[in-house]
This record gives sequence, structure tokens and C-alpha cells, in this order.
Amino acid sequence: MIPPSYGSYPSLSSTMAKSFIITLCFFLSALPHSTLASKARHFKWEVGYMFWSPDCVENVVIGINGQFPGPTIRAKAGDTIVVELTNKLHTEGVVIHWHGIRQFGTPWADGTASISQCAINPEETFVYRFKVDRPGTYFYHGHYGMQRSAGLYGSLIVEVADGEKDPFHYDGELNMLLSDWWHEGIHEQSVGLSSIPFRWIGEPQSLLIEGRGQYNCSLAAHFSNGSSTMCELRNRQCTPHILHVLPNKTYRLRIASTTALSSLNLAIGMGRKSFGSTEAGTNQIDRCGFKEVPHQLKCDLLADVAPSEWQPCLFNHKMVVVEADGNYVQPVAVDDLDIYSGESYSVLITTDQNPAMNYWVSVSVRGRHPQTPPGLTILNYHPNSASKLPTSPLPISPAWNDYDHSKAFANKILAAMGSPKPPPRPDRRIFLLNTQNKYNGYTKWAINNVSLVLPATPYLGSMKYRLKNAFDSAMPPDNFPSDYDVMKPPVNANSTLGGGVYMLKFNSVIDVILQNANALTENVSEIHPWHLHGHDFWVLGYGEGKFSEKDEKKLNLKNPPLKNTAVIFPYGWTALRFITDNPGAWAFHCHIEPHLHMGMGVIFAEGVHLIGNIPMDALGCGMTAKMTMNGPNP
Amino acid sequence: MIPPSYGSYPSLSSTMAKSFIITLCFFLSALPHSTLASKARHFKWEVGYMFWSPDCVENVVIGINGQFPGPTIRAKAGDTIVVELTNKLHTEGVVIHWHGIRQFGTPWADGTASISQCAINPEETFVYRFKVDRPGTYFYHGHYGMQRSAGLYGSLIVEVADGEKDPFHYDGELNMLLSDWWHEGIHEQSVGLSSIPFRWIGEPQSLLIEGRGQYNCSLAAHFSNGSSTMCELRNRQCTPHILHVLPNKTYRLRIASTTALSSLNLAIGMGRKSFGSTEAGTNQIDRCGFKEVPHQLKCDLLADVAPSEWQPCLFNHKMVVVEADGNYVQPVAVDDLDIYSGESYSVLITTDQNPAMNYWVSVSVRGRHPQTPPGLTILNYHPNSASKLPTSPLPISPAWNDYDHSKAFANKILAAMGSPKPPPRPDRRIFLLNTQNKYNGYTKWAINNVSLVLPATPYLGSMKYRLKNAFDSAMPPDNFPSDYDVMKPPVNANSTLGGGVYMLKFNSVIDVILQNANALTENVSEIHPWHLHGHDFWVLGYGEGKFSEKDEKKLNLKNPPLKNTAVIFPYGWTALRFITDNPGAWAFHCHIEPHLHMGMGVIFAEGVHLIGNIPMDALGCGMTAKMTMNGPNP
Repeated sequence: MIPPSYGSYPSLSSTMAKSFIITLCFFLSALPHSTLASKARHFKWEVGYMFWSPDCVENVVIGINGQFPGPTIRAKAGDTIVVELTNKLHTEGVVIHWHGIRQFGTPWADGTASISQCAINPEETFVYRFKVDRPGTYFYHGHYGMQRSAGLYGSLIVEVADGEKDPFHYDGELNMLLSDWWHEGIHEQSVGLSSIPFRWIGEPQSLLIEGRGQYNCSLAAHFSNGSSTMCELRNRQCTPHILHVLPNKTYRLRIASTTALSSLNLAIGMGRKSFGSTEAGTNQIDRCGFKEVPHQLKCDLLADVAPSEWQPCLFNHKMVVVEADGNYVQPVAVDDLDIYSGESYSVLITTDQNPAMNYWVSVSVRGRHPQTPPGLTILNYHPNSASKLPTSPLPISPAWNDYDHSKAFANKILAAMGSPKPPPRPDRRIFLLNTQNKYNGYTKWAINNVSLVLPATPYLGSMKYRLKNAFDSAMPPDNFPSDYDVMKPPVNANSTLGGGVYMLKFNSVIDVILQNANALTENVSEIHPWHLHGHDFWVLGYGEGKFSEKDEKKLNLKNPPLKNTAVIFPYGWTALRFITDNPGAWAFHCHIEPHLHMGMGVIFAEGVHLIGNIPMDALGCGMTAKMTMNGPNP
Repeated sequence: MIPPSYGSYPSLSSTMAKSFIITLCFFLSALPHSTLASKARHFKWEVGYMFWSPDCVENVVIGINGQFPGPTIRAKAGDTIVVELTNKLHTEGVVIHWHGIRQFGTPWADGTASISQCAINPEETFVYRFKVDRPGTYFYHGHYGMQRSAGLYGSLIVEVADGEKDPFHYDGELNMLLSDWWHEGIHEQSVGLSSIPFRWIGEPQSLLIEGRGQYNCSLAAHFSNGSSTMCELRNRQCTPHILHVLPNKTYRLRIASTTALSSLNLAIGMGRKSFGSTEAGTNQIDRCGFKEVPHQLKCDLLADVAPSEWQPCLFNHKMVVVEADGNYVQPVAVDDLDIYSGESYSVLITTDQNPAMNYWVSVSVRGRHPQTPPGLTILNYHPNSASKLPTSPLPISPAWNDYDHSKAFANKILAAMGSPKPPPRPDRRIFLLNTQNKYNGYTKWAINNVSLVLPATPYLGSMKYRLKNAFDSAMPPDNFPSDYDVMKPPVNANSTLGGGVYMLKFNSVIDVILQNANALTENVSEIHPWHLHGHDFWVLGYGEGKFSEKDEKKLNLKNPPLKNTAVIFPYGWTALRFITDNPGAWAFHCHIEPHLHMGMGVIFAEGVHLIGNIPMDALGCGMTAKMTMNGPNP
């Protein structure tokens, strides 16, 4: 028996009566919140360390108001969010980044330490005030050191404004914030990354769904042929976040990934598709059915194999992707969903499977040889008990290194009809070569051979007030040597350190070609999800090898999706386009937390002369603090 | 075989020839440094986390320039120390307190976060510049959160000025910085202390001598009847810090304790005193000898017991205490030395034991039921190999709860002839009741029922610039209810929180009567070593129970020692007197790190109108940062 967690519901019940009431309440609360109407939404948050057991093993996590993950913010497009954040960490600064919110007119509220603001000191309060101008599935997270990895994150959900409608229908809504979890603390992790010899953080101990996972045991032990043990979930903090549904309804599943490292694949298991035959394996239709069901998974080749090897026709719940990173996309049905750190999606699922059963929802690792078991929870069809374990197998997920599957998925994400189109050509094109390097014996990531080191004074303030020597005045390069062989480890592994800024002309069109390459080890090239602050970009395309002129023609200028995070595949390139329409200093970086820590990012700045008055509280450090402090004579 | 550590010597040798050279070098370097002559001593320090194995178990420690403990500062009285400290912690602020240095004229260099300065932000540099006006044995340590417990400490040794002499002779000098060590990190420790339910940090895993200890094994396993295993010291970081000596010389042993928790007793073992008999146990003189040796230890009653129970006459190396907390004291010979966190002593030892042997130096826990084995190192008589383990037993130490022994020791420490005498009477007497309390379910320590919470803006700046509402304007009470029963747990366990300041008249005489009491648990009263910043105080006396008028007469106004740290014994009181001759804001607190963290301290301030210009770098936080920053119009 699994003690289920009912999301925000405080009480549990094992009786049907209570269970029904809870389920009913759930559905009421899951419907679009048409009663939310006010325009400013105030929150008072205290950020502090606390003991918590995200995967049943106790650790220290960073929580907000005693919660992990932090409270979900729900608002409507056009609202102003006001978060009064008090730092209750004992000796550490803190900031919070509102991932996907472009911060038009409020670049100081972007929540990036050393970039948009000074870290908030212990016992001090900073007020984040910004507009959520656009509906979508967002999240927030720490953006200082590796505090995101310590659990400083939560969901930020913006509904359509009153009177507006999403371009699709759904009956209820479910939320899944995904993350990965280590038992080693972030201080140890970050020291290891900055040590000689280099110590990698390793693969996560668990994957978390809504902050809940299970270490060293499995909810689905009965499917593992004895290789894992069933979880005894005595600890409420790690009971799975159950997804409660009614049969034959459509749900909007909001999915966001704030993993420190892991690329993920999400799938919702697995029912037998019924074609009139009631018994498994009795006829070809029941065992194959590919003609009737175009998106079938395991049955592709059934017609070609001997009947003795036929398998029952089992299918994941189909997901129809309708939103990516706060932008509507052309609806596309998939059997499973790739999601990289920094991305968010909405998918519609229809609860059209056998309602007598519950189903597995699984999250598994992509792109790295997994040493972490899938994160699991349960899609609970009403009126089944939430603690009734699914009897069908785990959902089908692609192999961790099936990059073709990933690329096919990435290429399926296209802008919805009526979305803004990219300008036909860029004013400037910046090539950014992603390499793993060495610097004085330290292992680094570098962009065009520069490994990012952030300055003590945040860029936004030092630019606005034209402070000299606050950061490298030299602009980093727009390109890399044309003879660089992206298929081989760097010939000269040494990079430089830098904190220079790409100064971008305001209201110009910028292309960024992210170019992947071989890491320090031969035949290794990693996935990097790149996230841009302050903007969305159009993803013009993904390609193999080194970007060349002939790839130009392949770029999609017709319906490229708008996103804020896009992946580069191993040895590949990704082409992005955006307009510099948002005065500020903006980070653009790999969203893998240890990679950023190792220098994998750049800074863009545009229209700094147009920035309004930066709140004093954002400037209380480094040279901006000293700027006008006349100590002796206040 | 123990690979010995030779202090700062990089190379080891097992050959006699090399060993001789090293030993020779050692003695040259250990002689008073008459070649040090310059007046300003510059240091560039980077403070950062690193992996280290203080007790053979790897942990993350805070190091300075890659060293743990931090580098030893050596200077001469009258010198100016300049430490350019760069914070290389990733997200934490940092400060360093120069323990025992009074900071006349430089109160902003006292290195207390929220009191004398803003914590130094990551990547920022703060310059500590202060005069060491007086010879003595000092140390430095972090004073923010629990960073001292993470290993942020080192020695600060001030020799007499050129042309001056110490009032005692010695041939060489040895240094022993003592600390205690936990395997749990400070973030976990401090979260536990601030959690409901309260989680105590527990007893330390090891005691460290010069940053070196051994966990789960003993150098002296052969004396433990199989209860512990011999250390295999493969890790250089935890090999003991050997004390190398020549026979028949006098050494100044500088001892300082920066423990987080532990009260310690130090003793140097144990030689057989020779009285002409060469064989153990053959005659009464060899077995007793108490008439010949007045400070004998185990033999007191030998004359009264049967010859079959006689024991060999073994004696610790005698220590003659000559300095306490940077003040010369009346020389007094002891067999072992109590030292509390925050204290320092110099003792003279004479290497008059059998030179064919090495001897144990042991450090053991006092005042708490020890769960931590003694810290050990070796007094290595030249020309014995440093790796030759002593064959004599461990030194004799008093029982952990032999408070009479401790009190006798404390009362032996008296001012040296010619020391300044205290004024005959105080201008103001402040009684400070030490209680353990609850606040909203949290476990706290409180002084006169106020548990100290430090403000976001350091006191020194907010006082100097008369900023309103920077801290509690109400002064905390000078006394506690006269009917408070110090022998019982508090009747009302609830304390208040506060950050008020004891405003002291400049150049006045202040008495502080520290009054101990029962903790929350019946029949428990703990030791607290109280440390005063910016001053020494005269320790007028220690007493039992509640201080009363009749105790007045017992105060020692003749030759009380000057110290900066003094202990209160369980259920006892300690009377201190000092002169408010140093403009500034000064912490006065229990030097047990978790106790301070739980609120066990007060703030004194005097002559704030006389403070010079505070360096801007000390003011870059809280209200002092905003004070004159006119963000929009720089």
C-alpha cells in the first residue's frame, strides 16, 4: 500500500467517502481558476535551509516558507507578481530567477546574481516585482552558486487573462515539476567541480516529480524481476505526487524541468488497446494493430516476426504537445516527451484507457548512461484508490542514447498557427563554440575558448552607471577558428577565463549558432540545453556536424517555434534567432547547473541606456555599493 | 611506523642524516625570530572551501590559500598587520576575527559580521589593517555563521618588540593550535540547531592539534587493551604534528584553543622519575618518591597502600604557565593545563626526561562526558626518530567532571608582577544570567532572558551614522529577577529575541558578573567560556551558586589576571572588570560556536562618537549600503 500524496491536500483518507470528497475537491481546484481576478499578487517568502527527504533519504534542502519545492505561483496574464523575499540562509546570499518571464522594463528583477542584481544578504529582504505578460508554464529557481541543485525551485503558472481562451480545450490540469537529486550537498559538489583533480558530481541518486522520489527502492519493484525492492513509504515527504483523473476527460499536463543535469523523457503508461478481442495474444489484431493505431510503439515489426514473438498491444497514453516554454505550438501527438533542463511543455492527455486501472507515469534519463532509476508516479483513474499500484508494465521509453528519437521529437515542435514569424535575416550572427577545456589544471567549459567568470559587481548596475573596470571591457569573439575540428578533442585544451559582454545593438536581429564539439575525452560530445534570459528565440533548426553555408537553406523561417531554451545535440549545431528588444544585461547559458558553474555561458546586453532606475536594493555590492557611498560624511 | 609531519617542512626523511639536518633547521627556525624587523606585514589570503582530511576522514573545510589550518601570522609588538582577504567561497560571505587583538582605533577590523563590518561578499576583497600592540599568543578565526567550525582559523603570534624581552627564558618555541572536528558539515549542523525539534551537533568526532587528528583509530592503540586499533597514517594531512625538542632545554609551548565546543585538558606524558633505582618496582623510592617530587600525580597515597598495589613513579612533563590570553601571568607549575575555547596560554616545559624516549602529548575533553578520544601527538626528543612511538603510558589527565581540579587551575592563574591593577570599584555593574530557553519551540541560550539575534546592518556603522531602526533601540537589562533560582531549570522557559546594545559610558569601569544557572534539563549546568572583543578584563574571581553581596569581599583586586576569555563553571559565577577605553561596538559572547549561534551573547558599545572613518568596504550591506546610495542619479 502506498500512502498517496494529494498535492496540496493536507489530509489523507482510506475510506471511499472521504476519498470521493477529496477527489471532487481536486477536480474543482484543477479547473481553470476563473475566480482569480486581481492584478497584483503578493507573496512573502522566507528562503532557508531545512531538513527534508525528497527521495526518502534525509538531506538539507533549500526551502521556501518551510516548503519543498517552493510554493506554486498562479497568476493570470497581465498580473504583477510581487515577491518579498527574505534570505534566512545563515551565511549565503540568494536570488531567484523567474525562468521564462522576460522582465520587460524590469531587468533588475531577473534574479541572476552578478548579472541583474547583487545577491540578497542574509536577513535582508528584496522585493521582486514584475509583470507576467503572457500565459504559460513557467518556473522559478535559485541562480546563485548551485542553489538550484539544493532544491530552490518551484512552479510559476500563468493562466490566460480573463476573457481570453487557450486555443485548446481541457477539463482539468495537472502539474509536474521535474528535478534530479543528489545526496551530496551543493557545497561539496561545487568544491569538487573547482578542485584539482576535478571531481564530477556523478549521476543523480534520484529523479523527483513535484519534489518527490524514491531512493534505493522502486514503486514498481514487481516489474523489475527482483532487481529492486518495493518502497516502504513511511515518510510522507517522498510519497509520490499522485495525478488524479476522471475517466474520459482531457487534462492539461504542465511539465517543467529544473534538473541540475539530467535530460529527461516522460511517458505515461500503458494500457492494452482493445480491438474486440478480450484475451491477450489470441489474434494478430490484439497483438499488433498497427494499422488501426498509427502511433503504436512496440508493434512496428510484428508483421515481420514469428507469431511466437508477438507481444500484446500495449500503448502509452498519447500526449498532444500544445505549449513549449510559454508559447503555443502546433499540436502534435507523441508517445513520450523529451524535456531538457530549463524547458517547459504543456501536453493534453485523454483518460481513455481502461478506467479500472491506474497507470505509471515515468521519467527517465536521456543522453547520459543512466545510473538513476526512473522517477515514478501514478495516474490515478477515479474512483480507483490512489494506492492501487498499476498492474500494467512501465511506460515505454526510448533508449538513453537514441538521439534520433530525440532529434525527431525536437523537430516536431513547431510554432502554432498565427505565431510571430522571425525576421528573414539577421543583423549579426554569433557563432558560439561549446568546448570542454582546462584552465590552470581546472576543468572548464568554454564558449569560443572563453570560460565565463562572473564579476563581483553585477553587469546591469555597472553598465547603467558606466563604472570602469567592473568587468572585462573586451568583447568576447563572435566566432571560432574556421579550421576547428568539432569531431575531435581540442588540440590545445587550454581556455581563458573572461567576463566580457556581447554588446548587442538595440532592436536588431541576432542569430546565434550554437556549435557543439567533442569534449576533452575522445568520442564524447554532450547534450547542452541553452537558456536565454530576457527573450524568447526562434529555433531555426538543428543540424549535424559543423554548421556551414549549405545549412543556411535548411533553416526553418516558416514556423520555427519560439522558446527560451534549446538543446544542442552531440556533435551538432542549433540555430537561434532573436530580437534585441529588451533593454538589460542577460545571461545566455547552458542550463546544466555544474556546466554553468564551470563557465558555460555568455552575457548579452542591449539598450542599456534605456534601462529605468534600478532599485537600490539590487546594487548593494561591489562597485555599485561604493559608487556614491561617502562613508565619512553621510 | 608513523610518517611524522614536520610542521612546515615539506620533505620527510627516514635517514638519520637528513633527519639531523631537518632537526637542526627546526631549531634554528624555532628560536626567537630576531631577524623579523619590518613594521608592516602584508598577507594576501584567499578563503575557500577545499577537500581535506583533518582526522584522516575526508571532509570539506574552509582553508586559506589552500592551507588548513590557515597560515600562521608571526609579527612583533608594534607591527601593523595587513591582510588582503579575498572571499573565494561561492555563495557565502566571510569575515575573520583577530582573537585577542584589541583593535584600538580600528574597531572596523575586528572581523565580526553584523557587528564590526558587513560580511565580505564572494569575489570581493577586504583589507584588514590593524596594529598588534602587545606580544602574546593569539589566533584568528571566522566569525560568521559557524565558519569557525568549518576550519577557518589559524595562529597569530606576536613576539616582543626588538630590544624587548619576555620575562622568562626559553631555548625554543613550539605551537599547538587546538580544535575539535565534526564530520557533519556546518550547514547541516546549523540547520539542526535552528530546527524544531532541536538537533544538537553532538560530541566531536576528533580533537585536532595543529589541525591534525585521527578518527576511529589511535596512535596509542597498544595502551588501550584492544579497545582501539592502531592508525595507519597513509594520509599526510592527518599525521600528527610532531613536537621536536632537544634534551635538557626549555621550550615555550604556545597553546590556543579555537574549539567549537570542547573544553580541553592538555598534558605531556610521562616519564619515570629516576631516584637511583634502575628497575621498576624494586623499592619504595622508585615507586613513590612523593617527598622528592612535590607535584607527583599517582603516588599520593602510596605510603598508605599495600606494596602489592604500588605503581611505578611516573610523572607528566611539568608545565610552567607564563602567559594567558596575551598577558604575562605569575609563573605557576602545573601537571596539566585546562584550556577553554577562546583561551591561549604559553607554558614553559623542560626536556628533562629520559632522552632515549619520546613522550605522548595528549588533549582530552573536560566538562562534558567525553565521547571523543584524546587528541595525541608526540614530544620527540632528539635524536630519536619522530616515528618512534612512546613506550610510556599516556599522560595523566583529570576526570572529565573533576571540576575542583578545573577551579583550582583557574584560581592559580594570577597576574604577573607589575601588571596593571584593576580600579578599586566599578562605575556600573552588569549581571548577566546565562540560561537555556525556548523561543517559539526553538531551543535557545539567553542572557537575562534575551537571546541575541544579529541585525542585517552591522552595529558599528549604524551607530556611527545614527541610523534609526537598524537595531533594537531598547537596552537589554542590567540584571535579572532577584528571586531567580539558578539551581533549577527556568520556571518559564520562554525567552525573547533581541539585538539591543549595552551602551557603556566611555572610560568608565564596568563590572560584569556572569551568572551561570541550570539549563532546561534538571541537574545540568554547562561550562561557558565568555570572550570579550576589544578589551581584556580582569578576572576578579570565580564562585559557587548565585553571586551575593558577601561574595564582594572575596574578589581579588590585588593580582587578578587580565584575560579576554573567562569561563563560568556549572552553577557558578565569574566576576570581571574592564575599562571602556576602546571606542567601538564589541561582542561579548560564549565562545562555544553553537551556543553563540543559539543566541548566547550581548553587544557592548562605548565612545562611538570617537570612532574614525569606517572604511567603505565595511559598510556595503544593509542600511549603511543604502545610506547614501542615490541609485537613479550617480
